[in-house]
Amino acid sequence: MRIALLGGTGDIGEGLALRFAHDTDHEILIGSRDPEKARDAVEEYEERLAERGVEASIKGFTNEMATDRADLVVLSVPPYYAGDTVDAVAEKLDADTILVTPAVGMKGDEDGMHYHPPSAGSVTELVAGRAPDEVPVVGAFHNLAAGELSNLEHDLDLDTLVVGGGSAKDTVTSLASEIDGLRVLDAGPLTNAAEVESITPLVINIAKHNEELHDVGVKFQ
Amino acid sequence: MRIALLGGTGDIGEGLALRFAHDTDHEILIGSRDPEKARDAVEEYEERLAERGVEASIKGFTNEMATDRADLVVLSVPPYYAGDTVDAVAEKLDADTILVTPAVGMKGDEDGMHYHPPSAGSVTELVAGRAPDEVPVVGAFHNLAAGELSNLEHDLDLDTLVVGGGSAKDTVTSLASEIDGLRVLDAGPLTNAAEVESITPLVINIAKHNEELHDVGVKFQ
Repeated sequence: MRIALLGGTGDIGEGLALRFAHDTDHEILIGSRDPEKARDAVEEYEERLAERGVEASIKGFTNEMATDRADLVVLSVPPYYAGDTVDAVAEKLDADTILVTPAVGMKGDEDGMHYHPPSAGSVTELVAGRAPDEVPVVGAFHNLAAGELSNLEHDLDLDTLVVGGGSAKDTVTSLASEIDGLRVLDAGPLTNAAEVESITPLVINIAKHNEELHDVGVKFQ
Repeated sequence: MRIALLGGTGDIGEGLALRFAHDTDHEILIGSRDPEKARDAVEEYEERLAERGVEASIKGFTNEMATDRADLVVLSVPPYYAGDTVDAVAEKLDADTILVTPAVGMKGDEDGMHYHPPSAGSVTELVAGRAPDEVPVVGAFHNLAAGELSNLEHDLDLDTLVVGGGSAKDTVTSLASEIDGLRVLDAGPLTNAAEVESITPLVINIAKHNEELHDVGVKFQ
């Protein structure tokens, strides 16, 4: 499968690129608004994978070109770019391209971070509303600890929650499960995304207020 | 310390009563609107503790009488009773009595449970607003799996998140940590409660959509 990570030079894109390249045989495409930046990131990721004896062939593109080539597109951009990025790549999406959204709306104040969903109810639902009707949208990877994800020395033991429906959700579940140490749980349809997204500000608050928990994800048990 | 569990005949009250009685030497008071119901619950809890060789002395009262006797009061009532219960026991609360609130506002639809906070921002903040000004209010125990908590055969390995401030939060942190297998994390001030409460509908959705996860709590790692 060809996986495009739009905004793949950012934290979560970096982590997913490294983990997919390290743990699976899928083809990874890094997308960025600036293709030069994408290629620089690719070079860095390949070096880090080579240090661990993994010869990965990752490619860097504009977001549009990465989307055009992909079977599955992860919208790993900041939440305030999520809608615009969907618009920018919309013509390259179709019914056979799964769009995966991990972004979360938050705002901070002096006390901490707070969940701040758009009027669509969640960023996940905003993306689903903005994508062309025929494109299957799945929410996933919202609550991963970016630092743990990017550090290939670290053995993951985390859950990720998937929201959506149909065969697209099954495909994302199966794909995400290929990352070692990542368990994929079903949180129901897209309308259940807000409760999934709410964990992200919470883990940031936990990081702020607890020693030695500066980069944590979540596990349900 | 004398710990009153108001609504102590319900799921979370039962679990906390059993765990505190089993793991600590604190005195446990079960409160209910109906004192007879409280005493029936006490009898059952004592039997279940005796089966595990723990001789516990738990007492049953009305919510008002339990509050009057307690150093720390856990408002383990359903969210729609939280405000009224605070009003009912308000005269028995004072600056030396810590009020702990674990309730969460939710509403369900065909897709699952959704976080549904009151206009105060969270049930935790609603309780804080409703309690007399001098009473320290702490949010805790929102996201525990009631079934795991009540099953003393089950070794807990869960986190609970505490919100609030000052020495009251320290006291609750210390007390909750006395339950074996429960790690207490600081999620910041009361204004961060909504993100903590949001986990509860999420774990219900996870229970609905995933086999063998019908009663889960959360761990941050």
